[in-house]
Amino acid sequence: MERTRHQGMAKNTYMRWRLPLVCLLWEVAMIVLFGVFVRFGPEADAHWEEEKKELNLTSDMENDFYFRYPSFQDVHVMIFVGFGFLMTFLKRYGFGAVGFNFLLAAFGIQWALLMQGWFHSFKNGKILIGVENLINADFCVGSVCIAFGAILGKTSPIQLLVMTLFQVTLFSVNEYILLNLLHVKDAGGSMTIHTFGAYFGLTVTRILYRPNLEQSKDKQGSVYHSDLFAMIGTLYLWMYWPSFNSAISEHGDAQHRSAINTYCSLAACVLTTMAFSSMLQKKGKLDMVHIQNATLAGGVAVGTSAEMMLTPYGSLIVGSISGIVSTVGYVYFTPFLESRLHVQDTCGIHNLHAMPGLIGGIVGAITAAAATEDVYGKEGFIKAFDFTGEYQTRTPSVQGGFQAAGIVVSLLMAFVGGAIVGGILKLPIWGDAAAENCFEDEVYWEVPEDEETDAYHMHNPDKPASP
Amino acid sequence: MERTRHQGMAKNTYMRWRLPLVCLLWEVAMIVLFGVFVRFGPEADAHWEEEKKELNLTSDMENDFYFRYPSFQDVHVMIFVGFGFLMTFLKRYGFGAVGFNFLLAAFGIQWALLMQGWFHSFKNGKILIGVENLINADFCVGSVCIAFGAILGKTSPIQLLVMTLFQVTLFSVNEYILLNLLHVKDAGGSMTIHTFGAYFGLTVTRILYRPNLEQSKDKQGSVYHSDLFAMIGTLYLWMYWPSFNSAISEHGDAQHRSAINTYCSLAACVLTTMAFSSMLQKKGKLDMVHIQNATLAGGVAVGTSAEMMLTPYGSLIVGSISGIVSTVGYVYFTPFLESRLHVQDTCGIHNLHAMPGLIGGIVGAITAAAATEDVYGKEGFIKAFDFTGEYQTRTPSVQGGFQAAGIVVSLLMAFVGGAIVGGILKLPIWGDAAAENCFEDEVYWEVPEDEETDAYHMHNPDKPASP
Amino acid sequence: MERTRHQGMAKNTYMRWRLPLVCLLWEVAMIVLFGVFVRFGPEADAHWEEEKKELNLTSDMENDFYFRYPSFQDVHVMIFVGFGFLMTFLKRYGFGAVGFNFLLAAFGIQWALLMQGWFHSFKNGKILIGVENLINADFCVGSVCIAFGAILGKTSPIQLLVMTLFQVTLFSVNEYILLNLLHVKDAGGSMTIHTFGAYFGLTVTRILYRPNLEQSKDKQGSVYHSDLFAMIGTLYLWMYWPSFNSAISEHGDAQHRSAINTYCSLAACVLTTMAFSSMLQKKGKLDMVHIQNATLAGGVAVGTSAEMMLTPYGSLIVGSISGIVSTVGYVYFTPFLESRLHVQDTCGIHNLHAMPGLIGGIVGAITAAAATEDVYGKEGFIKAFDFTGEYQTRTPSVQGGFQAAGIVVSLLMAFVGGAIVGGILKLPIWGDAAAENCFEDEVYWEVPEDEETDAYHMHNPDKPASP
Repeated sequence: MERTRHQGMAKNTYMRWRLPLVCLLWEVAMIVLFGVFVRFGPEADAHWEEEKKELNLTSDMENDFYFRYPSFQDVHVMIFVGFGFLMTFLKRYGFGAVGFNFLLAAFGIQWALLMQGWFHSFKNGKILIGVENLINADFCVGSVCIAFGAILGKTSPIQLLVMTLFQVTLFSVNEYILLNLLHVKDAGGSMTIHTFGAYFGLTVTRILYRPNLEQSKDKQGSVYHSDLFAMIGTLYLWMYWPSFNSAISEHGDAQHRSAINTYCSLAACVLTTMAFSSMLQKKGKLDMVHIQNATLAGGVAVGTSAEMMLTPYGSLIVGSISGIVSTVGYVYFTPFLESRLHVQDTCGIHNLHAMPGLIGGIVGAITAAAATEDVYGKEGFIKAFDFTGEYQTRTPSVQGGFQAAGIVVSLLMAFVGGAIVGGILKLPIWGDAAAENCFEDEVYWEVPEDEETDAYHMHNPDKPASP
Repeated sequence: MERTRHQGMAKNTYMRWRLPLVCLLWEVAMIVLFGVFVRFGPEADAHWEEEKKELNLTSDMENDFYFRYPSFQDVHVMIFVGFGFLMTFLKRYGFGAVGFNFLLAAFGIQWALLMQGWFHSFKNGKILIGVENLINADFCVGSVCIAFGAILGKTSPIQLLVMTLFQVTLFSVNEYILLNLLHVKDAGGSMTIHTFGAYFGLTVTRILYRPNLEQSKDKQGSVYHSDLFAMIGTLYLWMYWPSFNSAISEHGDAQHRSAINTYCSLAACVLTTMAFSSMLQKKGKLDMVHIQNATLAGGVAVGTSAEMMLTPYGSLIVGSISGIVSTVGYVYFTPFLESRLHVQDTCGIHNLHAMPGLIGGIVGAITAAAATEDVYGKEGFIKAFDFTGEYQTRTPSVQGGFQAAGIVVSLLMAFVGGAIVGGILKLPIWGDAAAENCFEDEVYWEVPEDEETDAYHMHNPDKPASP
Repeated sequence: MERTRHQGMAKNTYMRWRLPLVCLLWEVAMIVLFGVFVRFGPEADAHWEEEKKELNLTSDMENDFYFRYPSFQDVHVMIFVGFGFLMTFLKRYGFGAVGFNFLLAAFGIQWALLMQGWFHSFKNGKILIGVENLINADFCVGSVCIAFGAILGKTSPIQLLVMTLFQVTLFSVNEYILLNLLHVKDAGGSMTIHTFGAYFGLTVTRILYRPNLEQSKDKQGSVYHSDLFAMIGTLYLWMYWPSFNSAISEHGDAQHRSAINTYCSLAACVLTTMAFSSMLQKKGKLDMVHIQNATLAGGVAVGTSAEMMLTPYGSLIVGSISGIVSTVGYVYFTPFLESRLHVQDTCGIHNLHAMPGLIGGIVGAITAAAATEDVYGKEGFIKAFDFTGEYQTRTPSVQGGFQAAGIVVSLLMAFVGGAIVGGILKLPIWGDAAAENCFEDEVYWEVPEDEETDAYHMHNPDKPASP
């Protein structure tokens, strides 16, 4: 049963030399740069035995590994299984969803270790890495996975790698501006990861607008089992989000608090999502798209404030609102964005990451501005916002202002960066597919000829029944 | 291809206003109650810096977060992915299995934080929560997930929410009686979670008996891939059960011991399950229903005793027996329960949770009664059973008696509570489906019209081939 | 729709009495042996309270449970979900892949606790177990899961149990020779787990060569969704491999370093795998077989050296090479092995475990030989290679030589052991299926009669359309 459909493709999607070349060149560059720059941090280096004595540490438990490794693994699962499977909802793009997500994330974490390393872990000419760097690298590619959601099914793997290269770079610059220059708190990345990643991806997909995309509309839906695969992604993101938001918080109460706030916010978000999913549909039935996505908005929306004294009920409020906003977004904003603004957002990242990310930034600014020594305790207050050194005299309301500035900077970086990168990706050399072949694994993958495929074609009105 | 079948439904399953109303009212109530009552516990509060000094703690590692968070995340996965996917074995109820489990668990954990908080973490008018509360809330909804297994496919989401509300309440009361009044040990919840949850669910499904359920018998089976989805649930429950049973044990040896005992019990359980699955079938073939469920009985059956000195070989014995009992239950008891006692138990929770839960309670009572200072060490003995304060003089045999009393109380609470709640759920206002529409996602979910659906209908004898 | 096809089977695959007998006899033997030998180690025993005082430990955190339990759970997931689902890629062998893997692993860990216990944890006539023993038991059956990959779909469950019994025994002997007699380092098991396990499995499958296997060639491929199920296995193996390689390393920097090296190696491996997968295929499309398997070679290839000062760039180099070797293996070596050497390797373990395992052994020997006090620090150097006691005077280059010897010993054990065990499995009493029924769940499992099955048969040219 040879498929002739694709032989008439207008576009050249042949990857044989382009993709290997990009991957191998890149990996060689990584090896050289790692060779020059990257070394083990003191807690991962064999000299740690001596270091321990100097620091007067009595237990190996004081190694940061034990404070953060379980959270790291949860974050790792979110990036690779969470985002990867969340995007398998399309009926014939499961390989691309999981496989390209795997490719770009593995590619991106190496570059992120370098970029973030130069900004944050550079000492005597070397980048010293430990478990916190691994988490931050995962976070950084998380923003690329988000952007991938907007262009899912419409881009070639090379375009994804090019985008990853630039987005990781811009992410790191933006993160440096926020964390170091503005001295902003954003442990769970409402601004740096979600707002930046989502608006970046939306800008890119706007630039790459495909006027004829309705040609592949039949493939833009799900099938029964692809929706179940996507739920694997959803649940792992949902369950491990408390680890995401607490992974790089300060040891002790801050990590503890982040996890609790996120747990509460997510629980509330599920209820409002279910409520609005049923309410906004004429037949009152629940829509898997909402359950798969909007239930996660609660995690995004406390990304900045989770480690602050948001309190459990504050988290419930934020989670409830974000579930509503996100579900309403899927029902009303996504069609509007596509038809009016020509923003084709495959996974609806505007609803899951962009708007909740903004909410998260704003909630963070408010929570910071409302902080008092009474609520945090004298020492806790200083520790929570790191009001030491040159920031010794910063007040909560000033901190709130800087937090708000962080949102604006992230948005600007996203729009400008996304426009430039989108322009680069529009060049006709990257091997993207024609509109009628979007959302179709066959373009870039060896797809098994199987019964399901047969069934698929059998019911495809413009094809005769197989074989 | 409009489906006309459902248009003639005798029952009104329209959820559009009822479900949103329940969810939103509930969430508002939660926000208010959390606002009034719930605050961070000392280890999650920003005042922890000062607390540490008072308690003379030298390391952030002493924060309970680091003792319990990895176990918490494992338990979290069990509740949402474990129970959720275990129930996806039905051919057309995967959305309901994963989605409703998600809904009721997210709903239940909020209420459980309050209910359990009032009983166990109430101080100066506030409920102070930390990671242990999150674990306990997950445990509590675990009992609801179990009960859900009995009524899977036969109830509306509103019925599930109503049941969750009442069951969480009753669970908390029962738990308080057992742990505080009877001073019973039950860290893995053989009695509080499994025995209570299962007999509660069985009583509810008995009250909701549907005489015409054979009308949807064709949908009560699995398909090839739904059985694989269910194995995801099975394996995550199986693998993480050592975390479940050790999550709230005392720091140190008790957590360590619980994990080992559970690991051993589960390993043995797999072998006896496989043996009996093959033996009890004429053709000698293995049955996925047994593998998916009975292999887990070993975790249930050491839920009370895992933190005691059950010893590895004791665990092997308990695990072996529970695998046999559970498999035999699937083959002989489930059909008997349905035909004679009118207990329609979709997932066979009687075999997976009820009987093994009873075994667990009994084994716990025996293990407690057999405890000696020789085996535990003088201090270990007191610590293991918390024989301090008013319980200073309690002997092991008395403790064994109280453990046995705990089983009886749990059973009584389950039967009485289940009967009342079942009666409430029988009211004709909750929107459950007619018998011929049970086990069918289309009733409450937007289901994609896809090739598999087509294939399904094509082979449905009473429908013409599509389209 | 009764299937008559299997009724003419030449071979007797009836399991009804054989499988139960083996499982139950075995479990009884385990109970007896555990009763005689296995007790809790000091950190899991209730006497720990007193132990703590003797050891002057001030915190429960010093219990090994907290150093290793999160890694243990990750390893546990790799064994049961990772290996289990990785092998579900076959279109009609998903039950066998997940189910038999479950059976043999649950069977094997019990025997491994004993075997490894006698060699490493035997004290005053008792085997004292703790969390490290659980990890090691999982590691040991990991080597059986690897070997299972070579014979997947071609053996009866009894054959698998017999193989497990012998392989666990041989594994433990080999491990004892390497770790205790040769004093070799191999924390991630490049030699003990991968090289041994893979060449053992390859030898077994060579002995069990089936000349008529092309009769079931149509079932040896994947279908769309089975490839997605397999990706669940792949990703969990990939994500948790840093835990695998660090799980039993020394506390502190060694565990930390192992995780970082493995993370880096795996990231690089993904890129070179993708590059070569596209490059070696005429159409330049990516092949799921490579993505599912070769991306993991980077974890295998740093199994020995990850805890050494391999450095991040060293890890990138090793990972890059192993991805290339593994992918090339799938394209060129696997067909060659089958056609010329009569080695039928269902999952391609030669590419994923055998060759990368050898690379891992060699890299370990080189890294050890190149170690200097300068790089490790004086104390770190001694700690890393345990150059104490009788090994006080061993030099790095001598250590490198012993490491190389470890590879040779592992290979010898694998070939000789595999040949003997293969001979035993060739006896016509174990109930394996005829060649035309290989890769078919129906032989040993109750398989649901479902729409997908129907679709399958409908397109099966030699069967009339259903029903």
